[in-house]
Amino acid sequence: MKEVYLDYAASTPVDPEVIKTMNPYFLEIYGNPSSTHQKGLEASKGVENAREQVASCFNVSPETILFTSGGTEADNLALKGIAFQYSPHDLDDGSHIITSTIEHPAVLNTCKQLEAYGYNVTYLPVDKTGIIDLDQLEETISKDTLLISIMYANNEIGTIEPVKEIGKIAHKHDVLFHTDAVQAVGKIPIDLSSLPIDLLSVSSHKIYGPKGVGALYHNLGISFDPLLQGGGHEQGKRSGTLNTPGIVGLGKACELSQKRLQKDISHLKKLRDYLIDQLREIEASTLNGHPTKRLVNNVHYRFKAVEGNALHSRLNEQGVYIATGSACSSKKILPSHVLIALGLTVEEAISSARFTVGRLTTTEDIDYIVPILKESINNLRLISPLWNQQ
Amino acid sequence: MKEVYLDYAASTPVDPEVIKTMNPYFLEIYGNPSSTHQKGLEASKGVENAREQVASCFNVSPETILFTSGGTEADNLALKGIAFQYSPHDLDDGSHIITSTIEHPAVLNTCKQLEAYGYNVTYLPVDKTGIIDLDQLEETISKDTLLISIMYANNEIGTIEPVKEIGKIAHKHDVLFHTDAVQAVGKIPIDLSSLPIDLLSVSSHKIYGPKGVGALYHNLGISFDPLLQGGGHEQGKRSGTLNTPGIVGLGKACELSQKRLQKDISHLKKLRDYLIDQLREIEASTLNGHPTKRLVNNVHYRFKAVEGNALHSRLNEQGVYIATGSACSSKKILPSHVLIALGLTVEEAISSARFTVGRLTTTEDIDYIVPILKESINNLRLISPLWNQQ
Repeated sequence: MKEVYLDYAASTPVDPEVIKTMNPYFLEIYGNPSSTHQKGLEASKGVENAREQVASCFNVSPETILFTSGGTEADNLALKGIAFQYSPHDLDDGSHIITSTIEHPAVLNTCKQLEAYGYNVTYLPVDKTGIIDLDQLEETISKDTLLISIMYANNEIGTIEPVKEIGKIAHKHDVLFHTDAVQAVGKIPIDLSSLPIDLLSVSSHKIYGPKGVGALYHNLGISFDPLLQGGGHEQGKRSGTLNTPGIVGLGKACELSQKRLQKDISHLKKLRDYLIDQLREIEASTLNGHPTKRLVNNVHYRFKAVEGNALHSRLNEQGVYIATGSACSSKKILPSHVLIALGLTVEEAISSARFTVGRLTTTEDIDYIVPILKESINNLRLISPLWNQQ
Repeated sequence: MKEVYLDYAASTPVDPEVIKTMNPYFLEIYGNPSSTHQKGLEASKGVENAREQVASCFNVSPETILFTSGGTEADNLALKGIAFQYSPHDLDDGSHIITSTIEHPAVLNTCKQLEAYGYNVTYLPVDKTGIIDLDQLEETISKDTLLISIMYANNEIGTIEPVKEIGKIAHKHDVLFHTDAVQAVGKIPIDLSSLPIDLLSVSSHKIYGPKGVGALYHNLGISFDPLLQGGGHEQGKRSGTLNTPGIVGLGKACELSQKRLQKDISHLKKLRDYLIDQLREIEASTLNGHPTKRLVNNVHYRFKAVEGNALHSRLNEQGVYIATGSACSSKKILPSHVLIALGLTVEEAISSARFTVGRLTTTEDIDYIVPILKESINNLRLISPLWNQQ
């Protein structure tokens, strides 16, 4: 059976060049990068080279890049790292964080935990395309606001937030700005030397690098409490033996992502728009999110009276792999918090599906899946009381 | 130049069988283990198989094993996870943790951070061989004690703590017991079904698995706050996309470690004792730590009037890789907190060196390094004012 993977937002295969770069670090260059002997120095050299590759991808200096175990840790570190500096013991009534209602759970649930610890959090609503209101953001800032955390691009619907404008507002009020760029990297050029961003989260496995590694960019001079205490690695900001193979893999993935950026963007955009064109032919169906301010690889569609999970399952049986909700939460049967935040009804939210294309997707793949998709939708509608009521 | 690596406590090469197990998870079984389609299920199957392998290594059920990014995260999660349940806002004067003065920095510095957040920590002293006093431990427990964290075996001097007795005392007083077993796994049989241990930290790269992954065993029914919030992975206890290749690598490493345990122990013990026998011939030199209650792969020696870092450097130039202090802190030029805790003078502490043998070490390696070591020691003593004063 032919398989078509359209879930690149959930994870990507590791690029063979990345695997080749990582390989020697398992059996040969296995020293602990903190060891000062030759075996340690070789490993440390790999780590520092990777740091330069990641930094170069964002046009910043290597000292601003700190390695983590992934995007979730980077988000947690950014938010709690800033918040915990104000030890809950010393919390005045005000310590305040601003985020949005459509953040990834790594930001949203960290904020909820911070609320439980006594911090105040504002969750900004979004319009029906998923974009926050800049005036409302500015009004929400108070003298107690420590941090604004708004994602670069949404992982479910692909909507791109106005991060430059958000950062300007944040800095105008002397507030720090963190952005989760896990889905944006490799799909949007990000020049941090000219963007008002203080902290930015990166994940390796979304950009054809290995799982289990990520990075947090942080403006030098920002201080934050480490999440992990220990041997004082990463200048005391993130303890734990450096994951040399993972880190060199992330470095190479960033280098490739930077090198291929324009090519990737035009390839993905072409496929995305081609798929959207085909889906337009399906009656009673709508694109979720923003028509233009959207990730080049994201197609998020709702099909009236088609239960997203049922569609997912039918496609899966035919070797077509898509998502409903995000991978993190797709084992739960709850309507997506993102779709609900757009103002969709529960019925609309659960009749939605995400198709994300990637480097290895071809036009033939789209041609192959569209008839399968149409047939599955037709069949599901045939048995749907919601459809037959029409 | 022949190279001899005697720093297995810092890190180990990944076993070729482990690499073979990991390989398909980079390019083929690349789905996000949280995705519910075929690509996700394949990955999830690998993760759950690994969980069984790790659990089986400790004779416990798979649900008690939670994957982390390494030993440091496991230690942080155990300590902060328990402590943070008592939100610093609600801290009465008492919330209390007991640890020892010779813990790994991942435990020690986490405790220091918890003190900064308002918790009380007792750091138990050790005797001159590195063992804590059980009577003193029991006396230190109060009604406010939440947790005792004492390592299974020390990473620097290899001393093995009486964990069974510690656990019994903890449970007698209804206190939880965590142990950092990062150095013990693969060198001591650990049957958690018959040990009074509630939480135990494991690191993959110390047992011929990949870096960037570890595990926390936790007695079912213990509740703790997660360190990382997000998509609710690992039953909500540790969010973040599961590092499939790393996890299957750790699983395989645990399986091999269990299978080879008796063989490894006898191999390592033979080499350790052989090396100690040779070092006995060097005048004014002493074994640090405990003569018998010590890890089978650890030789920690002090050589009067020989600066450990100078010895390290001379050996390094000749392709012999040892450690002074632990890898985590060996970039800092401070006397080891462990050696100082044993009652050594600063002079004694900085004239010490750690030799840790591993699966790939041979008798020939020992025969090769001993003359180099003796010559280096002689040369360093020749130029040492401390030696010439004698």
